[in-house]
Parts: sequence; C-alpha cells; structure tokens
Amino acid sequence: MDSIFVPASPPFRGASSDIGFEQADAVLFGAPHGTPYPGESNEPLAATPDALRKELSPDARWLDHWDFDLGGPLLGDQGFTLADPGNLDTTPLDGKRNRELIEQATSEIVAAGAVPIMIGGDDSTPIPFIGALAPRGPLTIVQVDAHIDWRDERRGERFGYSSTMRRASEMDHVERIVQVGIRGLGSARREEVEIARNWGAKIITAREVHRDGIDAALAHIPDGANCLITLDCDGIDPSIMPAVLARTPGGLTYTQVIDLISAVASKANLVAFDMIEFVPDRDTTGTATITAARIVCNVIGTLARGT
Amino acid sequence: MDSIFVPASPPFRGASSDIGFEQADAVLFGAPHGTPYPGESNEPLAATPDALRKELSPDARWLDHWDFDLGGPLLGDQGFTLADPGNLDTTPLDGKRNRELIEQATSEIVAAGAVPIMIGGDDSTPIPFIGALAPRGPLTIVQVDAHIDWRDERRGERFGYSSTMRRASEMDHVERIVQVGIRGLGSARREEVEIARNWGAKIITAREVHRDGIDAALAHIPDGANCLITLDCDGIDPSIMPAVLARTPGGLTYTQVIDLISAVASKANLVAFDMIEFVPDRDTTGTATITAARIVCNVIGTLARGT
Amino acid sequence: MDSIFVPASPPFRGASSDIGFEQADAVLFGAPHGTPYPGESNEPLAATPDALRKELSPDARWLDHWDFDLGGPLLGDQGFTLADPGNLDTTPLDGKRNRELIEQATSEIVAAGAVPIMIGGDDSTPIPFIGALAPRGPLTIVQVDAHIDWRDERRGERFGYSSTMRRASEMDHVERIVQVGIRGLGSARREEVEIARNWGAKIITAREVHRDGIDAALAHIPDGANCLITLDCDGIDPSIMPAVLARTPGGLTYTQVIDLISAVASKANLVAFDMIEFVPDRDTTGTATITAARIVCNVIGTLARGT
Amino acid sequence: MDSIFVPASPPFRGASSDIGFEQADAVLFGAPHGTPYPGESNEPLAATPDALRKELSPDARWLDHWDFDLGGPLLGDQGFTLADPGNLDTTPLDGKRNRELIEQATSEIVAAGAVPIMIGGDDSTPIPFIGALAPRGPLTIVQVDAHIDWRDERRGERFGYSSTMRRASEMDHVERIVQVGIRGLGSARREEVEIARNWGAKIITAREVHRDGIDAALAHIPDGANCLITLDCDGIDPSIMPAVLARTPGGLTYTQVIDLISAVASKANLVAFDMIEFVPDRDTTGTATITAARIVCNVIGTLARGT
Amino acid sequence: MDSIFVPASPPFRGASSDIGFEQADAVLFGAPHGTPYPGESNEPLAATPDALRKELSPDARWLDHWDFDLGGPLLGDQGFTLADPGNLDTTPLDGKRNRELIEQATSEIVAAGAVPIMIGGDDSTPIPFIGALAPRGPLTIVQVDAHIDWRDERRGERFGYSSTMRRASEMDHVERIVQVGIRGLGSARREEVEIARNWGAKIITAREVHRDGIDAALAHIPDGANCLITLDCDGIDPSIMPAVLARTPGGLTYTQVIDLISAVASKANLVAFDMIEFVPDRDTTGTATITAARIVCNVIGTLARGT
Amino acid sequence: MDSIFVPASPPFRGASSDIGFEQADAVLFGAPHGTPYPGESNEPLAATPDALRKELSPDARWLDHWDFDLGGPLLGDQGFTLADPGNLDTTPLDGKRNRELIEQATSEIVAAGAVPIMIGGDDSTPIPFIGALAPRGPLTIVQVDAHIDWRDERRGERFGYSSTMRRASEMDHVERIVQVGIRGLGSARREEVEIARNWGAKIITAREVHRDGIDAALAHIPDGANCLITLDCDGIDPSIMPAVLARTPGGLTYTQVIDLISAVASKANLVAFDMIEFVPDRDTTGTATITAARIVCNVIGTLARGT
Repeated sequence: MDSIFVPASPPFRGASSDIGFEQADAVLFGAPHGTPYPGESNEPLAATPDALRKELSPDARWLDHWDFDLGGPLLGDQGFTLADPGNLDTTPLDGKRNRELIEQATSEIVAAGAVPIMIGGDDSTPIPFIGALAPRGPLTIVQVDAHIDWRDERRGERFGYSSTMRRASEMDHVERIVQVGIRGLGSARREEVEIARNWGAKIITAREVHRDGIDAALAHIPDGANCLITLDCDGIDPSIMPAVLARTPGGLTYTQVIDLISAVASKANLVAFDMIEFVPDRDTTGTATITAARIVCNVIGTLARGT
Repeated sequence: MDSIFVPASPPFRGASSDIGFEQADAVLFGAPHGTPYPGESNEPLAATPDALRKELSPDARWLDHWDFDLGGPLLGDQGFTLADPGNLDTTPLDGKRNRELIEQATSEIVAAGAVPIMIGGDDSTPIPFIGALAPRGPLTIVQVDAHIDWRDERRGERFGYSSTMRRASEMDHVERIVQVGIRGLGSARREEVEIARNWGAKIITAREVHRDGIDAALAHIPDGANCLITLDCDGIDPSIMPAVLARTPGGLTYTQVIDLISAVASKANLVAFDMIEFVPDRDTTGTATITAARIVCNVIGTLARGT
Repeated sequence: MDSIFVPASPPFRGASSDIGFEQADAVLFGAPHGTPYPGESNEPLAATPDALRKELSPDARWLDHWDFDLGGPLLGDQGFTLADPGNLDTTPLDGKRNRELIEQATSEIVAAGAVPIMIGGDDSTPIPFIGALAPRGPLTIVQVDAHIDWRDERRGERFGYSSTMRRASEMDHVERIVQVGIRGLGSARREEVEIARNWGAKIITAREVHRDGIDAALAHIPDGANCLITLDCDGIDPSIMPAVLARTPGGLTYTQVIDLISAVASKANLVAFDMIEFVPDRDTTGTATITAARIVCNVIGTLARGT
Repeated sequence: MDSIFVPASPPFRGASSDIGFEQADAVLFGAPHGTPYPGESNEPLAATPDALRKELSPDARWLDHWDFDLGGPLLGDQGFTLADPGNLDTTPLDGKRNRELIEQATSEIVAAGAVPIMIGGDDSTPIPFIGALAPRGPLTIVQVDAHIDWRDERRGERFGYSSTMRRASEMDHVERIVQVGIRGLGSARREEVEIARNWGAKIITAREVHRDGIDAALAHIPDGANCLITLDCDGIDPSIMPAVLARTPGGLTYTQVIDLISAVASKANLVAFDMIEFVPDRDTTGTATITAARIVCNVIGTLARGT
Repeated sequence: MDSIFVPASPPFRGASSDIGFEQADAVLFGAPHGTPYPGESNEPLAATPDALRKELSPDARWLDHWDFDLGGPLLGDQGFTLADPGNLDTTPLDGKRNRELIEQATSEIVAAGAVPIMIGGDDSTPIPFIGALAPRGPLTIVQVDAHIDWRDERRGERFGYSSTMRRASEMDHVERIVQVGIRGLGSARREEVEIARNWGAKIITAREVHRDGIDAALAHIPDGANCLITLDCDGIDPSIMPAVLARTPGGLTYTQVIDLISAVASKANLVAFDMIEFVPDRDTTGTATITAARIVCNVIGTLARGT
Repeated sequence: MDSIFVPASPPFRGASSDIGFEQADAVLFGAPHGTPYPGESNEPLAATPDALRKELSPDARWLDHWDFDLGGPLLGDQGFTLADPGNLDTTPLDGKRNRELIEQATSEIVAAGAVPIMIGGDDSTPIPFIGALAPRGPLTIVQVDAHIDWRDERRGERFGYSSTMRRASEMDHVERIVQVGIRGLGSARREEVEIARNWGAKIITAREVHRDGIDAALAHIPDGANCLITLDCDGIDPSIMPAVLARTPGGLTYTQVIDLISAVASKANLVAFDMIEFVPDRDTTGTATITAARIVCNVIGTLARGT
C-alpha cells in the first residue's frame, strides 16, 4: 500500500501514521484530486486534507479532553484505532489514474475490515470511493449537498463532479440514495431531476429540513441499513461554511449536520464517510476550516462509540 | 419610456432588454438614487442594481436548469416574460427629479399590466414606487426591515429613508402595513411608534418571527389582498447579509425570507416588489450579494408560477 | 474609588461618568486584564471595554429612540441611572493586583446597592467579581460559554481562565451553577466533568438548546433566585460572533442569548452581569462588535425595566 | 479656550492635556470636520485625530527611548513642551461654525507664541488654519499633495476641499506657495493651472521629486522663510499610505516626506503644520496609520530640536 | 467588424464606442481570453478589460481636467480620437478561435491607420496581436515583464503564455526584443536563456533598472524605431501591483513605467500597446486597479501628444 | 543529531532532508522558538520555517529553471548540496532548552564544515546561533533590522529579543557589528545607543541607505572578513514586508537587501545567515511570504556561486 500514499504532515489528530489497515478500526486518507473538467483548475481543493489536519494538530495532545459534542473523549473508551496513511499521490490532470488510486486504497481498507474516511478533493472523488464499497452493499448513500449531481456528462467528461450520483446510481451495490440540503441552482436540468426521481432517489430540500428537522431525511433510511455519508461542504450554510465553490444561502446548520451524522449511525450502520468540496482559500471568515474539522471529529467520535 | 433608462450591462438573467412593457409579465428596473439627506452620501447604494445583475449573469445560459428553491426552472412552464429596461437615470443630489423618474417608470409598468420589480437605491426609493401603485390599491404593504421608518422628517427632508412608511401611510390606496423583522434601534422614537400603532400598522419583531415562524406575519395578511413586498436588506441577519448600512443582529434567515415571499404570493396577490438598502461594498464575507440575488430569483420564480 | 479607575472615552452610552455609586442603579466598568498564564498574551482582550463603548457612542444622542428588542427606550421610563467610572487600572502581568482591583471595585458597587456590570478581559476576570458578590448570595451563576472552565490549575496558575467555575464552586455564597451553550473541546478532561457534575453543576450543551430552546436552561433556575449571568462570547455562534479566542461552531444565536437574559430577569433576579472573552481584533466580519454591544444594551435595558 | 475643545483620549504621546498654551512650545489639536460639500460625507475623516493618538499611545512611556529618524528622544534635550487640548467640537454639516472654531483655536495658539499642529479633517480645514497664521506672515506654504486645490468653487461652495490653495492665495500674508508631489488627475482644469501659475505657485510634480530628489522643492524656499507645511496624505504613495480618499500611484516615499520636513525646518522656519485627508477606515494594509503617526512624530521631534 | 466585438459597459473614458476605425487615431479593445493551458483557468483574467474601464468611468466627465502625469488634459489639444468597440467575443477553451479574433481585429485597426491598444487577457494574447503588426515592421518589442516567456511549448501547447516572445522571435517583421524588469524565477531554463540571447534579445533585469534607471533599457532602442510596448503587470512591483498571477518582489515602480512609456514615445515611435496579466480578483490592497488604469491613461495621453 | 530535529514537510526546495551534515555545503534548519518574555506569546513566529518552506515547495521541480536575481539556476553549476534536517524541537516557554538546541545544532553544522542557515523564530534565536559560530571568528555581524537590540535585560530576561546585539558584543569571537536599516523607535534608550557606539558598533540608518545606497554599509566591512548576515524582517519596508511585529515605515527595499547580500558575499565571506521576526499571520497583503522566501533563495544561490 505504501507506494500510493504520501505521508501527511501532521497526521490527523488521534491517528497513527504507521499502523497496518488490519489493526485499524477506521482509516482516514486524503484524495487531493479527482477527475478534472477541461479548463477548470482543481488545485484549490487539493489543499483540503492537509488544511484539515493542520486545524486539528494543535489539539493532538488533547485526546484525553472531553468533547461535549460527543459526550466524552474523541476516541471513546473502547480502544478505537484510527490510521492515517497520508494523501494519495494524485495529480491535477490525470483523472483516470486518480480514480484508480482512490479505488485501490478504498478497496484495501474495506478488505482489511476498517471504515474508510476519505477527505477530498472535489465532488468527483466519491465515484471510485463508492465503487470500492461494493463489499459493504447493498448500500444507502446519504448525500449532504446543495446539488444533486446527476448529469450524465459535462464537456465530454462522464466522471466529473456533476455526475457523482448518476454514476453511483449505475452501481449494482447501491440500493438507495437520500439527498439532503438540496437548494438553489446547480447542474441539474428537468431531465436529470426526472431521472433521479424515476430511479428512486429521495431529494430532501434544505427548506424541508428547516421546516421538519432532520427527520425529513431520516424517514427515508431504514433501520440497520449500511450507509455512506458523503458530505459536500456546500450543503452547509455559507454563514458558517463559506469555503466552497458555489455558496448558496439557506444551507444546513452545523448542529443539523452533526445531529444527522449521529442519528444515521444510531439508526443504521455508518460504513464509510467522505468530505468533499472544501476550498481552504475561500475561508473568508476564518471559521469554515474549524467547522469542517469539527464535523470530521464528530464522524470519528461517532464511529468510536460504535453506535 | 426609453429616455429615462440607461441600459444595464449585463441585463438581468432571463430578462429581455428591448421588449415593450405591454409584452412583459414583470418589469425589473434599477433605481440607483432616491432622496438624499444633507451630508450623507447615497452613492454606495447606487451600485446595487448592477451588482445584482452581475452576480446572476454567469448563470444566464442556465435558464433550463432546475431551481430547487422553486421546484423547477426559474421562469416556470407558463411562458413568463421578464423585461429589464435598465436603470433610471437618477443622480445623487436631485431627490425631486429622482422621485419623478421612479414614479413615471412605475406608472408606465403598472399601466401596461406588468408587475414592477424595483432594485434600489436606499429606503427612500419606495416612496414614489408605492405612490405609483395606486391602480393596484387597496394595497397591503409587507415590509421586511429592521426599522419601521415612520419619521415625519429628518434634517428638514420629508422624503428621506426614515420616512418611507410615514409617507406610505398618507396615501389613500394604502390600506394595511405589516412590518416584519423589526429589532434594535432605528430612527423611531416613542412618538413614531405610537403614530404607527394608532394608524394600524402591525409591527412584528424579529424575535416574534424566531419564536412563532412566519405565521406571526401571515396572520395579518388577508386572503387575496394585493400585496407589495418591500425588502430592506437589513431585515435579514448580518451573518448572511452584512452588506447593509446598519447591521443589527437577530435578523431573519434566508429561508424565513423566501418562505414569506412564497407564502404571501400563495395566500394573497404579489403585485409589486422592491429590494433596497443593499450596499455592495459592505459585503465583507462575499456571501451577501449571492443571497440578495437569490432572493430576487425567488420573487421572479414565484411570480412566474402565478401563485 | 477614583484612584483605581481610568476614565473611559467615550463613556458608555447612557451612562454618567462622574456620578457616585450610591446614586446609580447599575455601574458598568471595564476590567481589561485578569490573571495571565505564562507565555500567553492577554493584551488583545484588554481592548474590549473601549471597543464596546466606541461601538455605542454614535448612538449616545439616541436615548429617546425606541429599542425594539426591549420594547421601549434603552433606559425605560422609571428613572434608571447608570454610572460608568471607566476601566480599572489593570496591567498585563500582575494577576494578583488585577484581582484585588476587580474585587475592590465590585465590592464598593455592591455595597452602594447598585448592580455591577463588568466588561472583561479574559475568562479569569469573573473570579474576583464573583467573590465580591457574597453580599448578594446565595447566588446562582448562569454561565453562557462553550467551555466549562473547571480546571484546578494550568501551568501552575490556579486563577487563570480555565479555572473560573472551579474557583466559584469553592465560594460559600455560590449555591448553583448552570452552564449553557457547552460544546466541542476545551480544557476539561473526564476528571473535571465528573467533579463538576458531582458538585451539582448543570451542563446544558448547545445541542440541547437548539433542540429544546432556552427552557433547557431555565428549568434549572428557581423562581426568584439571585442570578449572575456571566457571558463568555464564545458561547455565541461564530457566524455572528467570530471575535473570540477559540471559535467553535454550533453556538447560541443572538436571539437565544437575549431571550435567556430577559427570561432570567423575569423568572429570577439579575444581580450582576459580566461579558468576557471578546477579542476586538478578531472581528473578521465586522459584525461581532455590534452583536456584543447589543447584548450589553439588552442587559441594561432589562435591568432598567426592573423585571 | 476650554469650551471649544473636547478632551482627547488618549492624549497625544508626550503631550500634556491640561497645560496652558502660554507654557507650550507647540500645541497639537484635532479638527475633525471642515466645510462639507453637499452629498458627500466627511465623517470618515473625523476619526483621524483619535486614530493617530491611539496609534502612538502604546509608546507613551517610551519618551526616553531613542528615535533613529530624529537622532535622539522624541522631545530632544531642550525642555520642549507640547500641549494637546483635544479635538475641536466640530460637526459634520455646519462648515461656517467649523471654520470659526479652527480659526479661533489657531489664533489663540499663535497669540500664545506656540507652534500650532492641526490634525484634520479634510482638505478644507487648512483654510481657516492658514487664515489665523497672519501674525506669522509673510508666509510660505509648502503643500505636500497629489492635487493643487485651486478651484474657486464646487457645487456652490467656495470653502470646500478643492479650493484650499485658491483661498490661501487670496490672503495678504501668504507670500509663496510650493506644491509638492502633484500628479494624476484632480479637480483642476486648464483654467486653475493657469491661475495658479500666474499667481506664482510653484508646482513640483511627483515625477520631478523622483528624478531630482527633494531639492526640486527646496530650491523654491528661501533661507529663513516662515513656512507652513500642509500635508495631504494622498501626497504619499498608496503602497505605504492607502488610507486616502483618492489613491494615486507615483507618490512620495516616507523617507522623502521626512527628509522634506527636516530640510524645510533646517533651511527655513517651520511655524505651523497640518496633516489632512487621512481616512482611518481605508487603511487596508494596516500600515498607513503607523506611517501617518510617524510623520507627526518627525514634525514634533524636528520642532523640539529647534532646527 | 461589429460581429466580433461585444460592446463594453461602460466604454473607456474618452473613447467613442460607435466610431469607425478609419476616423480613430487609436482603438482600444479588450481580449479577455487567449490560448489556455490544460488544467489552468484563464477566467480570472477575462475580467480585466471591464475592470479597467469601470475604474476610469467615474472620471468620464473629467476630460477637461488637467492630468499632471501628462502635463495637460488626457486627450491633449490636437483633436485626438479614441475608439472603443468593446471586447472580442473570446471564450475560455478555444485558443485557436481566440487567436483568430485577436489577429483579425488588430489587422483591421492597423489597416485603418490607427494605433491598436489591446487590454488582455493573459500573456498569450499578444502572440496574434504582434502577428498582425507586420505592416508596422520592422518592429521593436519593448516588453515590461518579470519573465522572458521564451518556451517553445508547455503541456503540448505552443501558443500559451510561456511562449510569447519565442513565437514573436519567429516572425519576420520582428527585428528587436528588449525585455525589461526581468527577475526571479519563471518558465525559462538555461536552454531558453541561451536561445533568447543567441537570437539577440536584450534582457534588462529589474536590478539593472533600479541601479541605472530606465536608460538601461532605452540604450537598446534606436532613435525612430517602430515600437510595441507589451506590459505584463507582473513587471511592476507587487507593493503597488499585487493583482498578478505570480507576485515577484523587486519590480519596477509606477514612475519608472510611465517614464519608460514617455521616453520610448519620445525617442522612437509607439505603434502599438498591450497590457496583460492583470487579475482583478487579486487586487488585495485595492490599489492595483487604479495603477493599471493610470498606466493606460499615460499611454493614451502620450499618443495624443504625438511624441 | 536526529533527535533534536522534527522533519519538515515539505523540505526546503532544493534541499535534501536525509543527508549528513558532512556531505552538505550548507544546512538550513528551523528554530521556531527562542527565549520568551513573560506575558508575550512567541507562537505566531514559530510558524515561520514551515511557512517559508511551503511558499517554495511548488517550485521544487523547477531547480533547472533560471533565476534572474542570481543569473542562473538556484544551486548554480558547481554541485552545491543543501541539507534540511527540519525544525528544532523547541517549545514556547523553555528559553534555556531552546538556546541549547540552537547552539548544539549550529555547532554540529559548523564542525561539519557547512554554512548554517537558520530560519527563526524571534530575534532572540540568533544569540545561541552567534555563540556557536566561534570557530568561524573573528566574526563581522551584518545585521539588517529596524532596531539595534542592545538592551542588557527586559523584564528580568537577559536573552530576549531586545538583547541580541548586546549579548553578541560580549562574545570574544565577535569583532565587528554593522547595523543597517535602523530607524524609528525601538527598545533602545540613550544609554544603549552610547554603549553600542562606545563598543564600536556602526549604526547605518535606513535614511542613510536611501541617500547613499548600500555602500553606506559596505564601507564598514573589510575585504575578506568572515560575515554573518542576520536579517530581521522589520528591516525591510512594510509596503513589501508587513509580516513583522512592529511595522516601521522607511525600510529597505527588496533590491537593496539582495544587493547587500551579494555584495557582502563578494567583498567578504558569508559564513552564516539567519532570518528572524517574520510573522506569517501578519502577511496582510499576501506578498510578504513571497518576499521572505525570495531572500532566502538569494542567500542560497549566492552561497552556491561561491562568491
């Protein structure tokens, strides 16, 4: 495995950088680049994994402190082991190779019995990530996002960030797609909305969440289902998360997001997580990086509690 | 009409710039300046109409995309036609002429049977706008604002931005005033509060909206009433809308605002809309312009659905 | 008294700078520095009292205007008198002397029968402030904060900002501690959480407030109890209050904070107030100072209404 | 005198706030507002005197430290006494009263035998300041500015910031005007340039200073002439002084400015100084305030050395 | 011609937007996009032409004012006519078509006998611009830039922004290349430096200009030569021009740049000008746009004086 | 050696991270913390080494490109080997241990025959660095700084950042001190200036450099002297280097600094270099980090040329 990762500096708080996947309960890794569109740079997103690690590193010695979002120390009391092998050695322009790297890494983590936690990269990076989750199927995808991402192609590219859920819907092991926080305008046209609905995707708008709470989404997730949560940061409100490509008002609050994470893990099984579309350079208020890092902590802490 | 408008560049998304008002369902125009107070500059507000148009212009080719706030494409399926003749040729210091321009343009739009959508300019620009809505009376004014604007005069000026609702209350065709999002400190003293209440104005504080939802305001709007929504951007919370003259914490959320717009249109008739007090230079987080533009989209989309 | 204060410029809006404490209903004063930790600068916090006063000074002539958060003019109709003797002459490094100054000033205010309102300074400044409230005991402390502050010591210092509630819990006149808005990670470890709970402290997380409203906190405050509200600004959400040392997402809204203040005063007695951990230099959005000043206005206005 | 000043907080470094003008060698005072133009706000400039005082106050205890720009402590070794009575009680709109206040204060300082140092305020504030220097005439005005300010009137106002040198040229005691740093575009048309040249004003462009050094200006100042230096901050290059109304590239460097000040004092007599057009809110790099304050220190230190 | 231009709003100050090229002395036009490299976005540069026009539009009525950089009004006294047909209808990805548009527009301007002034776009836009200047050859290119741009290709693209001078050197009508302001690190390797020197290019580093003045460059320009000045904004120092792709310290001052422009026009013939690599979004100090616009004014004013 | 360094990520451009000091021509290392003063945080400075490395890492593959400041590739043509063992494991509060780490590392580098390049850290870090240069004595110190740093102690600490040159002057192997760029106000009083002058230190003010060029400093450095250049970033002008603790206008330009470095190396021997007082968080314009990194490149490139 070693050859496809570049060690991160610093490693993620609470994570060991040199442990085998077999010994880990979960493995966090970075996927800086995915599949680019011609004429768009994906470099600003490539800084994400290290930006989040850096945000958390000052607290690395604080693993014995109490996290009140979790009701205890980050890693709980049950001997949870987190590995951080670093970032995949992706490059800006070679989408095909990037997808292979992501799929290979995820497959090895899954094969070792650990929960994969991927930090993107843009919204194209989950395509191979989801692909490699086949051993965990049938799979329910819980996507937090402003956009539905159901385009068949854009600019001739079928694996770019506007096609994520379309590609996922074509995979045999994907049984269910619940899309939460949808609002405003994205790449979808009437055609894509109809295809998504005909497939059976549940589109929960942000307005519905503000009106009915996270139960608007939970109602569509069966008890005990194997769930991936894929979190596009633009699903969160730009007042607290400006660091995204396309800010859209009316998004989810931080509390709604962490309530959703713990509720999914409680009602069903959280078998994988990814965070994508975080753009460190656009953190104009200085609060977005903190928020993104806290969400990852909530995912790790939730997994460590085995709920 | 042509002589009083300066063509906008770019024209508003989805709007035709050279169509007659008679062919239009709604007409969006800019009113950069209103009635100034001595010693205060109204120039920063004059940039508003073009700033909002620019925010939306990149999406101009996206009129076939799905807007999830609206549940369909911006202009709906019913052949909605929007005209954008540009900005009125107002000037910083000549309040009297500015008012005449606004009144003339609005009257012509109303006479042509179209819904006028005015982008200010400061909070003084609605005075002649409301005046020209007489053919749509009796009128219910739904004002979203932090302040009530009931001063009889300030610094010798009776048509400035602190007198908007006072002047409106003196118009025969104005039947009802509902003021939503009121909070903090403004130009009103005990005297103005009592005059407003005695006239019959309903003052709904932001705290009441946060406690009871938008029903706190809707309860005061009769079914089928002809409504103007006049939206002072300082009615919105500064976490998402910092681009105002006087930031006041505790304001409405984006979702409350668009819920109010669609609920008013659904319960009553939306016969006119204006957005005022947006200051592009004060968008310190970069999110305010996006929010303001999205609200205007919600107004247009709501009109296009005929609800 | 004069010798321990440096006159403020400008004095707080609505406050007299040269009135005796005996003539005042409440006395607002600044406590720039508290007890420092080695190797950390407390200077950025020392600018707080004057930054808040400056934010309010433009409105000084507006005492006859209507404050819609309060439902009337700031100082009400009952002849409320507020004194502002200025800031204590504290210094960055001499924690012992700073504590003596704070305790002396508070004691004199309390002895004169006025309500003390202290503007810090860091979270260590309330320790002597609470100490001097003994004549108002038995005391209920309502702390709004992200953190519980129950460490016995850090870096050898027992009076620093991580020990505030621990020191308070040891005072005979402190009967009850209610901690509201707690979330994320702070200085507390399992040991401190257990000590706090064993003492009887009620820890209300921010998530609980978002789920159940401020009643989650009010339920723990008996009718008629003598209450201090100590407000660490990091209790408020960073989208509206970025000007803190450790931004933590998921905090209280402005409306929740002012609702809590008026509800405490209504159900119980508000006998003292302090605001701490506000860092003017970190107001990256320009909205935090406004928010902090408005909260202080709500405290003053609430006291002036005698509720 | 006291009635026309509002005490400053903090007083200027090294200045006594309660000394009589007769005991002072120089008197520094603030003139927040001058003569406004209709429709333009002069409030942003009113913050200047206190912003500069604040910048210097942290160093107040450092009067025994060595200033390497001056070659010794700020106030020298000769017992220099500086008074700071505070700011004139000017108001935004009443230009006539503002001029009277400035003229009265300056006259009293001059009558007491002290050197007046005025901190503006906009470029209109020097008109009454120069008027009150008649007892020091015949006077040579050394103006550092990007603009020549020779308009007879604008918008009907003859005492506004575009007319400063025109009004000065009409005063009997003004013998000579040397304008340094002129560049780019201002209010002057061909007519004003010809009137200035015909009067005898020497216009030294910034390009000439960059080519020939400050001798380009010094050559026009006779030995022993009584000189006022009036410094419009836009004379300085915007890379170091962005805090001005109209940034213009190609301005003087800090070193050229302080070299000019010491050279004028050395070759001639420095009988008065004013700094104007500094806009604290536009200090986008955070360096402008420091630069402005350092220039004032150089003026004071130069006076204290009696050169 | 009309079909290849999109009218600009506002048109450039002092320029007529609907005049034929034959009636014009000079024609200013925008070329938003050039030849892209795979995986890099050229969109941020596409905003340049309109950003510069907007900076100058407030002064449009000031054509009778005196410009002290020029020693008279912008357009001089000789009836200079400037046309502004708008921006070429270029697109981000189609480099071949963009080059054709630029070449066609420039050829028509040259054929009409006017001086072409092109506002880019990135550093690839001058390639077709220079190509179309053949009727003005033999040509001396005076390039102000931090980089020499002599790569034969990068990422398979031979017409991108690293190859500008290499392509120019291959054109028959290009006789001489003088490169001024060169410093730091760019795309050139030893190979490119040797090829450039062997061809005869004169490389004048920024350090040489700071040591010897602009004569370091002028010495290589023969009297009466037909000169193009191509100005990459990164040739200017980032303290005054941060709005570039690759900031490099040690660049030319504004005064050196305008001195060079007037000296070239005086000693030789200025037959064309382009400004490139200006990135409006990176104007972090707010001064860069002003500086860029002032330089264009100096070019126009220099042409208008026929020197 | 390994135990006292933490490997850097990324390693410095062109530097090997795992080479022995004996094989290196120069060794670059980070010294995050020095000797703190009570009540002041030195953490913001601790981020410097990694911030500079990160600035240069994108160019790591560009070692074959031409650096026009140097007249060739960074590492020249003579096989120059640079080692980067990472950062010393210093801590904020333990000044004594930090000094021991710096002295030990420097001694080992010197013993191995390599040139030490230290990236601080605050201005206290050079004290042990200079101490360990004894084998290179007699030593000439060329200090670029705004301040002279000759205090015997402050707050009881004799090894803090105000005492650097005082401690150096007491070392037997320090023969000569030349202080360049001195200006404004620092910690020095008359006493320190006299002690420095009596010792023989040459104080060259920034004004002298602007008047006479770098020869003002070079004149005091004998041919062939063994020189340390210690560069406090506040010696550079804040228009290009705002990222310092105490911005002072009138500083050296980038070109003056690199001219000084190459001139010292050419006339004498450059046996060591350190860069200190760079504060990444204060890079408000985004240009300071680039400038600091370019200066380090000039040092490395100068050493690689053996001049």
